[in-house]
Amino acid sequence: MVLTKKPVTGMKDIQPREMQIRDYVIRVIKETYGMYGFTPIETPCVEHIDNLSSKQGGENEKLIFKILRRGEKLNLKTAEREADLVDSGLRYDLTVPLVRFYANNAAILPSPFKALQIGNVWRAEHPQRGRYRQFMQCDIDIFGEPSYLAEIELILATSNTLNRLNFKGFQIRVNDRRILRSMAAVSGFPEESYDTVFIILDKMDKIGMEGVERELLNSGFEKENVDRYLGLFRGFQDASDGLAYLSGELLHNLDEEVKENLAGILNSVQTTKTGDYQVVFDPTLVRGMSYYTGTIFEIAIPEFGGSCGGGGRYDKMVGKFTGNDTPACGFSIGFERIILLLTEQGFQVPDQGKKTAYLIEKGVGLDKLCEVISKAQEARNDGTQVLVVHMNKNKKFQKEQLKAEGYEEFVEFFK
Amino acid sequence: MVLTKKPVTGMKDIQPREMQIRDYVIRVIKETYGMYGFTPIETPCVEHIDNLSSKQGGENEKLIFKILRRGEKLNLKTAEREADLVDSGLRYDLTVPLVRFYANNAAILPSPFKALQIGNVWRAEHPQRGRYRQFMQCDIDIFGEPSYLAEIELILATSNTLNRLNFKGFQIRVNDRRILRSMAAVSGFPEESYDTVFIILDKMDKIGMEGVERELLNSGFEKENVDRYLGLFRGFQDASDGLAYLSGELLHNLDEEVKENLAGILNSVQTTKTGDYQVVFDPTLVRGMSYYTGTIFEIAIPEFGGSCGGGGRYDKMVGKFTGNDTPACGFSIGFERIILLLTEQGFQVPDQGKKTAYLIEKGVGLDKLCEVISKAQEARNDGTQVLVVHMNKNKKFQKEQLKAEGYEEFVEFFK
Repeated sequence: MVLTKKPVTGMKDIQPREMQIRDYVIRVIKETYGMYGFTPIETPCVEHIDNLSSKQGGENEKLIFKILRRGEKLNLKTAEREADLVDSGLRYDLTVPLVRFYANNAAILPSPFKALQIGNVWRAEHPQRGRYRQFMQCDIDIFGEPSYLAEIELILATSNTLNRLNFKGFQIRVNDRRILRSMAAVSGFPEESYDTVFIILDKMDKIGMEGVERELLNSGFEKENVDRYLGLFRGFQDASDGLAYLSGELLHNLDEEVKENLAGILNSVQTTKTGDYQVVFDPTLVRGMSYYTGTIFEIAIPEFGGSCGGGGRYDKMVGKFTGNDTPACGFSIGFERIILLLTEQGFQVPDQGKKTAYLIEKGVGLDKLCEVISKAQEARNDGTQVLVVHMNKNKKFQKEQLKAEGYEEFVEFFK
Repeated sequence: MVLTKKPVTGMKDIQPREMQIRDYVIRVIKETYGMYGFTPIETPCVEHIDNLSSKQGGENEKLIFKILRRGEKLNLKTAEREADLVDSGLRYDLTVPLVRFYANNAAILPSPFKALQIGNVWRAEHPQRGRYRQFMQCDIDIFGEPSYLAEIELILATSNTLNRLNFKGFQIRVNDRRILRSMAAVSGFPEESYDTVFIILDKMDKIGMEGVERELLNSGFEKENVDRYLGLFRGFQDASDGLAYLSGELLHNLDEEVKENLAGILNSVQTTKTGDYQVVFDPTLVRGMSYYTGTIFEIAIPEFGGSCGGGGRYDKMVGKFTGNDTPACGFSIGFERIILLLTEQGFQVPDQGKKTAYLIEKGVGLDKLCEVISKAQEARNDGTQVLVVHMNKNKKFQKEQLKAEGYEEFVEFFK
């Protein structure tokens, strides 16, 4: 039987050249986040199906790779529904497993707990260019810090990491779920339709103010409410201090504390940042996940159209596991997009050290071979990368291939 | 609904302290194997169910985590067998996906191709102490090198890696599948029972010569054959040059080339090795996987009872994917066992750099907070790890916890 050579649909094999970049990016991420006191942890790729289907994951819950029960727990004859066949699935993000981890280990973890997680997640999405069904996520999260110190440190650490990966001039856009809701409230939208309103608002950067207006009206919202809503965004655009303008308009529909919290984040990041990027308030920022309870943020990199990472505060999720709410805030960078951008830019991993290839004529005796290998062992111990291979028939082509792999020096050994 | 806090059965959450050791070990592995010209690649964790069930994986094929078909491809009503429900599964080792990778990409890969793969694999084994259903494997493989240069480089690279991880005085035991078969042949065992014989032989280090004799007889083999078989092992033990003795006894049942190949590997590793370990011929070494075609090897570390890694030559597996056989040889180190040993020895990761904690009194103003964070940003840019946290009510306990995490210096900031 001839077996299948291609990877499973929507997943990819990663070639040596891309792996070099991935390994480098992971190293920079671990080093930089480490400087901010984030400690790596890991959770299993497989998660309880009930945890994955707990309405924390929004649309992602429809994309779960589900795992069949095993042994006696699997009975095809009596199984009627999918739930009879399945007990677990591949995680679709790192947040649900992280919160489970925290709930399970809170007693032995420091408070606050600052976690770094880098790992694969799986979503059975329709395959398309640059989107894969297995991809890496990279999250930092802080548990147990209720104040904006969490948001500030998350934004500074993430921006610093991006700077060290050669990304400059990007924007960190910040908003607050409570401002989103308050703006919908003063405009007179009914509370049960907020999510529909936000899904349309989220398209602002693609379809513009008029597009949002049109879609809201087409969705059956009252013209009066739509006008009032868009008036707020227009007023914001024209104001010299947008946050002051909006909090004036929202009045007792917005706690003073929310405004102060957001202003504090913006001011302190602007004051303490050491790299080349901006932090701005953007009331059109939505972020899809329903679990966010306060601040939300997103990275926009000019070279890349869409978002390149984001996060926010989710103070109610730990309580789903433990019954006791715990402050939590996280930031996820778009690992795969960063890799794609670096690869397309022809990024060269720095400091690779010297690479030498020893080419041995085929059929050399054992003594000669040992001599060559001893020499290689010595050079390796001195820090040189040495490849020991037999000469191919087409030596010229072999050397060209090796040069493309970064080998600079060639030493030849004959019988 | 309260969600489940524990990980799924048989899998584990990895704590910060263990992650530090894992990250360090992975770094040393990548650096050392890199010196030998092995380049990292990655394959998806999910693999075609047909590839996983192709009889390459022996007993592991019974332990596959299987993944449910999705969307229209899943029909519970018409499904009769498991195969109607499943299209893929989690890989149980890295070898099957690697061979698929090679078969799929051979045209664009250098020849020989030296691959390093570090990744998780899954087996639904009965949970027991120190054995998990998700665990990391770490393999190096060489495709396209038919001579013992492959075996020599694999053994040198792996031993050097273990040395750099502070393991000394271990043994690399080497055998050849063809010697195993030849010894069974000259003893007169019928060919179809070789696997049964080898499964019993494999217990030699646990039950000794008498135990093997007893089990062979109990399994119904002829006393004459058993006596002849054990006579070979006794003769080997007493001989000054065991390989010469055995090849004398096996005569035309063993190609001269097999003997020379094995002698060449032993001699050249012994001559060129730079670290503290031994390489020995061990005719009782079996290695379970049926895909091995020639040399097989295994690491025995005195501190650890069983094997701590192994591998061998499997020249027939690429042909299962492409129809054309390609020489292939690989070595897998027991990553999880190495982590377990280092953790139990209280291993400290070297060169961790300075760690400082800034403790801020709760309720400090924004200006003061910015001052503290700016100071932290400066220290981080100079290479110091700085944790910025609020003081807890019990500051003494907080500092003790932080000391246990490696923080040496504490700076306090008040309103």
